[in-house]
Amino acid sequence: MQTSPLLESLMEALRCLPGVGPKSAQRMAFHMLQRDRSGGMRLAQALTRAMSEIGHCEDCRTFTEQDVCTICSNSRRKENGQICVVESPADIHAIEQTGQFSGRYFVLMGHLSPLDGIGPQDIGLDRLEERLGQESLTEVILATNPTVEGEATANYIAEMCNAHGVLASRIAHGVPVGGELEMVDGTTLSHSLAGRNPVRF
Amino acid sequence: MQTSPLLESLMEALRCLPGVGPKSAQRMAFHMLQRDRSGGMRLAQALTRAMSEIGHCEDCRTFTEQDVCTICSNSRRKENGQICVVESPADIHAIEQTGQFSGRYFVLMGHLSPLDGIGPQDIGLDRLEERLGQESLTEVILATNPTVEGEATANYIAEMCNAHGVLASRIAHGVPVGGELEMVDGTTLSHSLAGRNPVRF
Repeated sequence: MQTSPLLESLMEALRCLPGVGPKSAQRMAFHMLQRDRSGGMRLAQALTRAMSEIGHCEDCRTFTEQDVCTICSNSRRKENGQICVVESPADIHAIEQTGQFSGRYFVLMGHLSPLDGIGPQDIGLDRLEERLGQESLTEVILATNPTVEGEATANYIAEMCNAHGVLASRIAHGVPVGGELEMVDGTTLSHSLAGRNPVRF
Repeated sequence: MQTSPLLESLMEALRCLPGVGPKSAQRMAFHMLQRDRSGGMRLAQALTRAMSEIGHCEDCRTFTEQDVCTICSNSRRKENGQICVVESPADIHAIEQTGQFSGRYFVLMGHLSPLDGIGPQDIGLDRLEERLGQESLTEVILATNPTVEGEATANYIAEMCNAHGVLASRIAHGVPVGGELEMVDGTTLSHSLAGRNPVRF
């Protein structure tokens, strides 16, 4: 836009958002300027505060502006004695929405990937080991992604738990609810068969 | 996200962007927090400046932080004597990229739409009429969108130009270059036939 350097720099800055190219950035900039300036100002303030104040929870490494996040500092969740290990803060959100888990979390912020130089320390496993030694945990639920790296990470943590005498469990793989069997891939179906449960009456 | 009110308000604020729902907002927020905090800060600054400083050009109504935009204050473009009327600042960008036009623009920021209560004054036609009377223009090129409202707006402005003795022209409708004839809709094809040009050798 030859008419405004400020507009140009706004479009350029919007492209730091994932999935936003030049056309979307232009559309977003025009939309805010023409129809939602107050929304744009609110976004600027929320961004400034979030980028400068949000850090990581000392206990579970998730995003929070406090030293310890609200989930970790909740005493009822502490009593539960379970820790669910996930790869990203988004996974916490997904699990919280099921309403099935009332323990605490540990967020790896990634997975083990030796080829990319990501070792145990980079995903905070030294902190997890510290907690395994200090706290009286009943179970560590491994909810890393069902990918090769996720499985490898889960195995590594399971061995760590075993060394500390803490039960480690892996979330079940199988056929997703509501899907059709013929659409499910072979690996998932084998997992589903191998992990079959007896029907109880 | 129960872990951070700031993160929650960032996700909420991101939803003011067009085409961004809860999932994309979450993805954007996590991406910036985890991988691009400096990009997020730059975006916040660009937004703050753009939202508070960008206004409309006094002559052509496009977005600019100056009183008169760089295109309108360019003396070579003034000498040209042509004004191209478009619906949005994005259209200026598209036309500038062709490199075929060296006059100035007039941005309507919409189109006539009596049912929505948008009359001539709301799209700045009083200012355009003022310019038709004051400046010595050779031609007004009507480049509004090829929609019903765009055509009606073009007709309205053409009559205004006629009253001031200024030549008004409408951009050509026809088959887009590079497309296939069988894929083109009937209305476009009739326009294309009606507007045929003799082949000159």
